[in-house]
Amino acid sequence: MLKNFEVRKGQMPPEEVKALIKEKQGEFVRQQQRIKEHQLPVFVLVEGWGAAGKGTLIGNLIQELDPRFFRVVNMVAPKEEERRRPFLWRYMEKIPQAGEFVFLNSGWLDETAEDMLHHRIDGVDLEMRLQQIRVMDRQLKDNGYLVVKLFLQITPKEQKKRLKKLMESKDTKWRVTDKDLQQVKRREKYETVYERILEATNTGDVPWHIIDAADKKQALLHALHLLTNQIDQAVENAKIQPEILHKDYPLLSMPRLSQTPLDQEMDREEYKVRLKTLQKRLKRLHNRIYRKRIPVVIAYEGWDAAGKGGNIKRLSSALDPRGFEVYPIASPEPHEKARHYLWRFYHRLPKDGHIAIFDRSWYGRVMVERLEGFCSENDWKRAYNEINEFEKELSDWGAIVLKFWVHIDKDTQLARFQEREKTPEKQWKITQEDWRNREKWDAYEMAVDEMIARTSTENAPWHIIQSNNKYYARIQAIQIVIDAMEQRLEE
Amino acid sequence: MLKNFEVRKGQMPPEEVKALIKEKQGEFVRQQQRIKEHQLPVFVLVEGWGAAGKGTLIGNLIQELDPRFFRVVNMVAPKEEERRRPFLWRYMEKIPQAGEFVFLNSGWLDETAEDMLHHRIDGVDLEMRLQQIRVMDRQLKDNGYLVVKLFLQITPKEQKKRLKKLMESKDTKWRVTDKDLQQVKRREKYETVYERILEATNTGDVPWHIIDAADKKQALLHALHLLTNQIDQAVENAKIQPEILHKDYPLLSMPRLSQTPLDQEMDREEYKVRLKTLQKRLKRLHNRIYRKRIPVVIAYEGWDAAGKGGNIKRLSSALDPRGFEVYPIASPEPHEKARHYLWRFYHRLPKDGHIAIFDRSWYGRVMVERLEGFCSENDWKRAYNEINEFEKELSDWGAIVLKFWVHIDKDTQLARFQEREKTPEKQWKITQEDWRNREKWDAYEMAVDEMIARTSTENAPWHIIQSNNKYYARIQAIQIVIDAMEQRLEE
Repeated sequence: MLKNFEVRKGQMPPEEVKALIKEKQGEFVRQQQRIKEHQLPVFVLVEGWGAAGKGTLIGNLIQELDPRFFRVVNMVAPKEEERRRPFLWRYMEKIPQAGEFVFLNSGWLDETAEDMLHHRIDGVDLEMRLQQIRVMDRQLKDNGYLVVKLFLQITPKEQKKRLKKLMESKDTKWRVTDKDLQQVKRREKYETVYERILEATNTGDVPWHIIDAADKKQALLHALHLLTNQIDQAVENAKIQPEILHKDYPLLSMPRLSQTPLDQEMDREEYKVRLKTLQKRLKRLHNRIYRKRIPVVIAYEGWDAAGKGGNIKRLSSALDPRGFEVYPIASPEPHEKARHYLWRFYHRLPKDGHIAIFDRSWYGRVMVERLEGFCSENDWKRAYNEINEFEKELSDWGAIVLKFWVHIDKDTQLARFQEREKTPEKQWKITQEDWRNREKWDAYEMAVDEMIARTSTENAPWHIIQSNNKYYARIQAIQIVIDAMEQRLEE
Repeated sequence: MLKNFEVRKGQMPPEEVKALIKEKQGEFVRQQQRIKEHQLPVFVLVEGWGAAGKGTLIGNLIQELDPRFFRVVNMVAPKEEERRRPFLWRYMEKIPQAGEFVFLNSGWLDETAEDMLHHRIDGVDLEMRLQQIRVMDRQLKDNGYLVVKLFLQITPKEQKKRLKKLMESKDTKWRVTDKDLQQVKRREKYETVYERILEATNTGDVPWHIIDAADKKQALLHALHLLTNQIDQAVENAKIQPEILHKDYPLLSMPRLSQTPLDQEMDREEYKVRLKTLQKRLKRLHNRIYRKRIPVVIAYEGWDAAGKGGNIKRLSSALDPRGFEVYPIASPEPHEKARHYLWRFYHRLPKDGHIAIFDRSWYGRVMVERLEGFCSENDWKRAYNEINEFEKELSDWGAIVLKFWVHIDKDTQLARFQEREKTPEKQWKITQEDWRNREKWDAYEMAVDEMIARTSTENAPWHIIQSNNKYYARIQAIQIVIDAMEQRLEE
């Protein structure tokens, strides 16, 4: 893309450029109101050569915008806290809310290029990363985001000239980084690497735009043109339903809920003995997992009163409290609702070596949101693939990903509901909503069967926990976690 | 406190200890339900000597708790992102939500001790820090928190023995830190420093509890005793209204709103010329502020339609977009409401060298929350002092703190409301709520007068921006920011 791109200077008379900028600037400001009205989030990534004018361009773009509804983020090399999470985590953290602009000054292109040039990534890992970027771009687009990716191009001669000028004054000298100088010295290597990333992430969904940055005014005009056009288009496109993708993830063959036996028995004595042994083993494994920096993500879903809470407690009480977090997931808060639905789970991902346990999870999308109409049909139908992609990213990052459906039959639920209503200390656990959900048992069962069938992958398998007998269920879950950890540690 | 504390081992027969632990453990678990019911947030700080068993104690305390409603945080040395914020910022980030436990493994005592021992803090700075800790403790308590501070005490002999044992096995050796060894070598120095901090922060509001950690079971029993008692007490105390403090902050003498002239004129021509000059100066100053790592916090308050948005825009458009953020503040979201009301502002504090501009602010407490009854009378009356303390902390940290009341008269507001209703692009800016607020003008004016009179300090002054003429107001605000920056840079 860079190779076929010719940098030219000043094809248009400066006055004409100035007048056009003013016109486009006005249009852009009016669009800010429009994106608020349409609740469009706009994510603008500005990449390019050192001294190509990324900061200046962003400064000019926002000049007339209402500062309450945009943010500018200067991405620097990842900090330790960021390096301990998936590559895209820190970018996902920064995605705009509905109706808001976020401008990133450098981003995943620059970070990946540096990783390549310093031999921190290559081969399969590089392919995985490029794929993750493509997936993020598409997922954001499908979830109503406008993502605009700009690359500011200047010739080596121009870059040298600009850097030289910056270095001449002590007020600007500090702005010249080592990386800038490397780019001049190793221009060809950089070009090859940039080229590679640009091409690999130049998709129909979210294409790259190479901007001739030889002249700053013309570059601004070009960027304004692109942005205003794309915002118009995005508002129009909001009516078009994104395609529902069915990617070929190797799915595990899973039983339907109705085929799952629920007649296992375990008495309190046996339970206590086995629990003690398993918790000891888990404790030791947690220590090793921590030291090997393996992240663990466990999602609990299940029927109301199936015993998720008690099950989680038996698992977590064997863990070192400094190394895990349990997240109860309720309906999203406003700032969560205003972002990609996976954002709030991304946000809660553990550091490597840590364990995150979700009490309800991102699967809400294909259960309660589907059945209660909190999202559109296209949304939840798309979600199977989006979730598989999300979990693949976790697994590529190195995480152990486990998902539990805590299962009981309808009679057992009724008995437990009644028990809760009778027992004063348990009454808070039962609400009218539980009874209402119970009436929709069949619809839920169908949704759960579909969910389990379509999202049980080798890297992130579902396990149906047989919880008519809670003792049995707890032993079953803890055993699965132990097996998964041991298997990973053996690899 | 440590000097008079005698460490004794095993005064009680082990079986008796075990039985009592079991009893207290049960009580503690039942209390977890109680703190949820009463929406009590419980913040437990566990400090003490290396190898005294802090981690083990926390592990035992949480053993039976529901993991969805507690968090354990292991505090390590502050990261760069944390060091660039006020000392207490990272602790405030971690305070529990209503109905939740947070256990801190080490905290502000340990961090301060290390800073003292490594000569990073002393004299006035140390006094300031100890005062900040006392203020945080009290503010949390007054805002409905239970803060429990434990210090685990062991003798030097016992510590040496435990460290030696840990170092004997390669599985535990890594847990012995350099700091632990330093504590053994420089025991007396450590004792002096701990003593100093313990005494300075041992207040009636939030006292320290020294726990004899010679025997782990007895230490656990002691901690359980303390916690269960304090939770009971805190639930009881919730009915007692905290004292309303009036500290002697040197207040600036401020005019009432009704005495503020609003007849200044400025025409568009003059405005444009002056704005251009001032924005240039501000731009240069921002660069210097950034390089000197001075944080800037600006709060905008004002009448509806006074022109806050436009004023902020003229200020921010002169700033380097990578160095500031504008935060529009609406009513708090659930996770914000569930914490100390200053938490969401703490959370948004800038890094040093950065500028945070708040469009509406923590002053909502003494305006809208007061007048609409969103908080109790005791709450808003206490808030003047709490806010002065908060702003003093910012100023002690080194921040420039400025507060603008963007002022217009009632007729001007009416004219602007009507204008908004007539102009299609502006209609979104006017709602029924604006009209309702307008009806309460006199009540608001009284509250604003009181607020300005009681919170205009030298370190964080209020400025009444005369905004009947918006041009004049914008020039006035930007000039104040410039003056404050220049003054600081000259110091």
